[in-house]
Amino acid sequence: MTWDDHLRTHLQELRRGTVVVASLAALREPGYGYGLLQTLADAGFSVDANTLYPLLRRLEDQGLLTSEWDTTESRPRKVYRTSRDGEQLLAALLTDLDAVRTSIETLTEGDLP
Amino acid sequence: MTWDDHLRTHLQELRRGTVVVASLAALREPGYGYGLLQTLADAGFSVDANTLYPLLRRLEDQGLLTSEWDTTESRPRKVYRTSRDGEQLLAALLTDLDAVRTSIETLTEGDLP
Repeated sequence: MTWDDHLRTHLQELRRGTVVVASLAALREPGYGYGLLQTLADAGFSVDANTLYPLLRRLEDQGLLTSEWDTTESRPRKVYRTSRDGEQLLAALLTDLDAVRTSIETLTEGDLP
Repeated sequence: MTWDDHLRTHLQELRRGTVVVASLAALREPGYGYGLLQTLADAGFSVDANTLYPLLRRLEDQGLLTSEWDTTESRPRKVYRTSRDGEQLLAALLTDLDAVRTSIETLTEGDLP
């Protein structure tokens, strides 16, 4: 593996957990998968549809998102929304992200590379 | 799975990538595995030895850490240090963490749960 491969792997690992945070935050406003891709991209999270769609189904299975079908257009679309449990998880993850940030600041203080 | 299980899984996923960042940051000062466990714990990162030690070997294999044996005590200990490549990766990951933070702030702005 080259250095670029290592960089990509570590960046992916760093991003993986944060896509959940971003999705739960964004879907407090109901939205469908494609719309969420756009919302996340606009916020600077470029996520692949092949990553996001299975994640949404997983979060729904876990009761962290609810869904209903929007049938107002010719092709029905699934609309997701962050559930009560999802909001609680979001709060816990945001708290943890802050803690991670503080820890990393402690470890790099005064001498960021 | 219960809600607690989901919470634990998502927290682990969120933490996984950041342990690399914390380790590379801490090991700009040479240290051995057990010492790093302490340093990370002091900074608020409680990492299990069974997680950290294989990670250190993986980072060494990737050329992101260098190591040498400290034989000044009766039992030789491996001392790790962040390599030049490791410092470059650290800088890239810190930049990405900042970007993630900005993205999440955009998504939660004004209405943090």
